[in-house]
Amino acid sequence: MKIDAAYYTGNGSFELRKVEDVAPGPGEVQVETAFCGICGTDLHVYLGHMEARIGDNRVIGHEMSGRVSAVGDGVEGYRIGDPVVVRPLAHCGHCPACKAGHIHVCHKLKFLGLDTDGAFQNRWTVPAHVLHKLPADMPLDQAALVEPMAVAVHDVRRAGVAVGEDVLVIGGGPIGMLVALVARHAGAQVTISEVNESRLKLARNMGFATANPRNENVAERIMAETGDKGADVVFEVSGTQPGVDLMTEVAATRGRICMVAIHAQKPQIDLFRFFWREIELIGARTYEIGDFDAAISLLSQGIGADRLITDIRPLAELPDAFKALTENPDSMKTLIRVTEEAV
Amino acid sequence: MKIDAAYYTGNGSFELRKVEDVAPGPGEVQVETAFCGICGTDLHVYLGHMEARIGDNRVIGHEMSGRVSAVGDGVEGYRIGDPVVVRPLAHCGHCPACKAGHIHVCHKLKFLGLDTDGAFQNRWTVPAHVLHKLPADMPLDQAALVEPMAVAVHDVRRAGVAVGEDVLVIGGGPIGMLVALVARHAGAQVTISEVNESRLKLARNMGFATANPRNENVAERIMAETGDKGADVVFEVSGTQPGVDLMTEVAATRGRICMVAIHAQKPQIDLFRFFWREIELIGARTYEIGDFDAAISLLSQGIGADRLITDIRPLAELPDAFKALTENPDSMKTLIRVTEEAV
Repeated sequence: MKIDAAYYTGNGSFELRKVEDVAPGPGEVQVETAFCGICGTDLHVYLGHMEARIGDNRVIGHEMSGRVSAVGDGVEGYRIGDPVVVRPLAHCGHCPACKAGHIHVCHKLKFLGLDTDGAFQNRWTVPAHVLHKLPADMPLDQAALVEPMAVAVHDVRRAGVAVGEDVLVIGGGPIGMLVALVARHAGAQVTISEVNESRLKLARNMGFATANPRNENVAERIMAETGDKGADVVFEVSGTQPGVDLMTEVAATRGRICMVAIHAQKPQIDLFRFFWREIELIGARTYEIGDFDAAISLLSQGIGADRLITDIRPLAELPDAFKALTENPDSMKTLIRVTEEAV
Repeated sequence: MKIDAAYYTGNGSFELRKVEDVAPGPGEVQVETAFCGICGTDLHVYLGHMEARIGDNRVIGHEMSGRVSAVGDGVEGYRIGDPVVVRPLAHCGHCPACKAGHIHVCHKLKFLGLDTDGAFQNRWTVPAHVLHKLPADMPLDQAALVEPMAVAVHDVRRAGVAVGEDVLVIGGGPIGMLVALVARHAGAQVTISEVNESRLKLARNMGFATANPRNENVAERIMAETGDKGADVVFEVSGTQPGVDLMTEVAATRGRICMVAIHAQKPQIDLFRFFWREIELIGARTYEIGDFDAAISLLSQGIGADRLITDIRPLAELPDAFKALTENPDSMKTLIRVTEEAV
């Protein structure tokens, strides 16, 4: 059947096309996409930072929810109409990372919706093993937050956040806010450091302590609030040199700093502080299978992540939605309503 | 009684003086120093880098061995003549690090032999709780290696070196060599990266694989030798920017980098690599009580650390020994024979 698909065609432009859907082969499932969020990586694609990897003829999108629309031969456990999300990772199974069991950071990892066509189309065909079934009563707009929520779960688990700990999240974008929600759910006291006042207001409305490093010395404040202990766990989600300076300054002795941000430049770092206070820096990327299950469970419990959805647009307005997101730093998470009938 | 003591008097000079010994008060023990090694930190004192902390009237020295020469009131478990070493740390018991159980990195840590008078004197009076008793048959020159060996044990434990892992030690000075010995004892395959050919030769004679980054691309070689996996654990003991570059380049996915070196400058660091490969950086400083016991046990078993002792000089030659160490980069560990009668 003919479906609508949004192709990224290079140079910051998308083209909506009518194309033939892809029937699922053996071991595959076709999913009718309900919603698909616009991720920070999608914005990088739109801004032309990833042309070499993406090319000029690619359907992107991976923060999705939907319903099974066709099931390939040999697939068990899925029926047409089942609500699902996709864990958009394909690993090689042979590299050193896969051999050590770390398939989510496979050295030849393919990301579905970047290295292959993704979810900004009515019907998306994927291997059955990347599907996670949703509870029947979970709204599919909220379910589009499962993928970024799985990132946050992975980050909080990697950092080993323990009940009663003091946590600082540096950077209050969608991932920073989700990390804050998950860390709070883990029993931590969470402060969010962010420079955008609109995001700070949202964070306060969601019940978080906030700090604006443009107006105050965040490290000094956290030290004062914690009796000179500092933050037990710091999440660096800003990708900036000031963020890197703050993370080492504010971390407690034996504190853990979780590196969530993508640092395209090589910042300067206070390695003496790592030695002196026995600090740990822990890299965290994508998610493991269990992180996805946990993200679904947390969203089902309703931990307030739906407040991050600031805009929902139909597929026809996808180009406008990307434009609006890059022009308005106050917006948080935009979802595309890809298929009206699946919602 | 009158004893000999070597005072650091500022500006790179020592003065040998006859002074009155300090009788042990309640809870204290007086130790007759047999041997005391010259530590890298002692060299920093000698080179004038620590005048503000040390002053110009201080007996330094802490890598020591000796025998109990007097026991203060209320001290149990020690008798005159017992062979001992000192764990030269005094913690406050009240700071956030102490409260969390990390007394070895107390925020107000006093280091005996830097912040108080140390072991480059015939008799040294210390609190009884910093003593560790030695096996009766352990030569006291080897026992002077217990303190740096405890550093190495702490580093290897912090990094969680597991049997069969590939380990790279960047920097083949005394601490780097001890780390390599302990990591090998933990069942790892160890390569030492070092630029000094004399140290590389000693490392090879001790059975280690070696690499000179001036002559070859160490990261490429380790990758080739490990099937593109990289080093499971990297110890950064060089304190240099090239060392920091190598550590991120060579670390395996989910690899651990242990920060042993003191980086006085803030180097640039490839934080993207930490994210991409989920690498961990683990700061490690001084030692915990159990690390000292383990160091004594390892030295008793004879893991070859005594080959690091390249010179032994009497106390009268202490100024010459410091001079020689700073002028000869080939030398490894110099011990001062502090009290002839105690040896």
